[in-house]
Amino acid sequence: MENTILLGHGSGGRLTHELIKELFVTHFDNPLLHEQGDSAILPGCNEAMAYTTDSYVVDPIFFPGGNIGKLAICGTVNDLAVSGAQPLYLSAGFIIEEGFPFDDLKKIVITMAGEAQKAGVRIVTGDTKVVNKGQCDKIFINTAGLGFLPEKFRDITSGKRVCAGDRIIINGTIADHGMAVMAVRNFASFTTDIISDCAPLNSLIKSVLDAGIDVKFMRDATRGGLATVLCELAESHNMSVHIYEEAVPINENVRGMCELLGFDPFYVANEGKVVMVVADNDAERALAVIKQNEFGKQAAIIGEINELHNGKAVLNTVVGGSRIIDMLAGEQLPRIC
Amino acid sequence: MENTILLGHGSGGRLTHELIKELFVTHFDNPLLHEQGDSAILPGCNEAMAYTTDSYVVDPIFFPGGNIGKLAICGTVNDLAVSGAQPLYLSAGFIIEEGFPFDDLKKIVITMAGEAQKAGVRIVTGDTKVVNKGQCDKIFINTAGLGFLPEKFRDITSGKRVCAGDRIIINGTIADHGMAVMAVRNFASFTTDIISDCAPLNSLIKSVLDAGIDVKFMRDATRGGLATVLCELAESHNMSVHIYEEAVPINENVRGMCELLGFDPFYVANEGKVVMVVADNDAERALAVIKQNEFGKQAAIIGEINELHNGKAVLNTVVGGSRIIDMLAGEQLPRIC
Repeated sequence: MENTILLGHGSGGRLTHELIKELFVTHFDNPLLHEQGDSAILPGCNEAMAYTTDSYVVDPIFFPGGNIGKLAICGTVNDLAVSGAQPLYLSAGFIIEEGFPFDDLKKIVITMAGEAQKAGVRIVTGDTKVVNKGQCDKIFINTAGLGFLPEKFRDITSGKRVCAGDRIIINGTIADHGMAVMAVRNFASFTTDIISDCAPLNSLIKSVLDAGIDVKFMRDATRGGLATVLCELAESHNMSVHIYEEAVPINENVRGMCELLGFDPFYVANEGKVVMVVADNDAERALAVIKQNEFGKQAAIIGEINELHNGKAVLNTVVGGSRIIDMLAGEQLPRIC
Repeated sequence: MENTILLGHGSGGRLTHELIKELFVTHFDNPLLHEQGDSAILPGCNEAMAYTTDSYVVDPIFFPGGNIGKLAICGTVNDLAVSGAQPLYLSAGFIIEEGFPFDDLKKIVITMAGEAQKAGVRIVTGDTKVVNKGQCDKIFINTAGLGFLPEKFRDITSGKRVCAGDRIIINGTIADHGMAVMAVRNFASFTTDIISDCAPLNSLIKSVLDAGIDVKFMRDATRGGLATVLCELAESHNMSVHIYEEAVPINENVRGMCELLGFDPFYVANEGKVVMVVADNDAERALAVIKQNEFGKQAAIIGEINELHNGKAVLNTVVGGSRIIDMLAGEQLPRIC
């Protein structure tokens, strides 16, 4: 193979075929990918399906705790998992800048293959486009994903059964991903100990659902951070969401970096955090199940739904006050995912 | 709404929500899109499914006969249709450059909505990322697509039943899309009469399959042109593909532009052309059915499979010679789709 990606790798001709065969099919290896038709052929199933897509444009493409390929797998797996679905199949679309180092592409592809295996999903179809130098920044990856959704979990996404008294759980510390990326961008010359939380959450979520816990709402807190999920929850059914600030787990080094750079950790992106709403009497058991998972050791009950029905998310601060959590108005952190 | 796309439109916060609600959901309107969870929820079906993805990076984004949004719908619909599947659901992932005119985005989205409706598919899930000015060129769109695939059409993609004596059909003129885009790039100051063939082919393909014609192989000739499809066909089962050059339809103005710019039309991209292989005794009937469709009026039988089994595609030229059709080695036309 060449040392860098050439425009010809996106031509649809000989170089594209070589790239697909020697890199993508080699590493994403599975029977469904082998046919190499225009579409992958998947088995049918009478259950409903969850279907999602995300493009990943993170900068830098390598960061502590992961790279753009890990994000592209975990992000889409998590979007399916929080819908109550079992993630099964992914597509992968690459847009690559001419001259991109082949070794970096290989690292990204190998990471994707490893994460897909860990998450139990198969990459079954893909596409590669190469654009001239300067027409995109290094590499962008789109993954779409498909999973089967058991009937009993169909209303998790809507959150329509959430009611006053329900408790809100998060599976660990917030703002790690955003601050890990920001630290590299701002302080590239020395290393910090902040590591992205990027992780596939489907096994954690499955363990909660398998335990028979009635999850009434579930969403991963990515772009826009925990605050955005809480606002969406409050607005969607005109509920009142109360959060206890002191209960929200934050790593001390992340808190310090947020203060240094002037960010509110509630608005900073996560890539391995899920917010769940369960009935009060399920909350402790759900917490115990989550804590058994490698990605849930620092899980906490961080708030509750109360009876005001005002469509607002409110933070009870550690100093005894309260403030409304609003949705992010502008853009704090472009290209965070 | 703002006049241009801001980084905040990709933040996941308030501006993203507004963009989704006021532009995407408004125009892509359908019940499955309304839930706005992390995944769309699709009904199950016991049939096999075809699943595909493509990213679209065409430059310029508006060209005679279409725009990047039309391509993003038709390209993915066609990838599903040539697999024998009935295209049903699309995802749409947008990567937009900061400062992109909102009116252009709206034009693109409205085009996508219209093409989706014509093709009978629904856009059920999406994603928007905004990158800083200069970090991508205007707009890139990824669509992934899902369709149900009846058991009886499952082996069309592989082409394994193709045998000597079978005939090769194309539904019309070649090289229109590539030359329409090239004409705009090279001669932007005056207009040519070359128009992209970009079109959804699922109704044409359905009419052939519904007529009971045994299609043994089918592929759309996009990047890499007709030549690439013929090479793939020849190589896949070590078959010998013979093409009669004088039978291949080419518009005169396209032929002229190819000569002017030094392109071989066999390698120039199409966006509304399908190559089908059928038994000799089905060929005339297939041709008649195709010609009844609005996108098949200039269809022609352009070649045959013969008994050499050498894995080569050979062109019998109009001057009486023959030459081997090889796969595109480099890149003729970056960002053609």
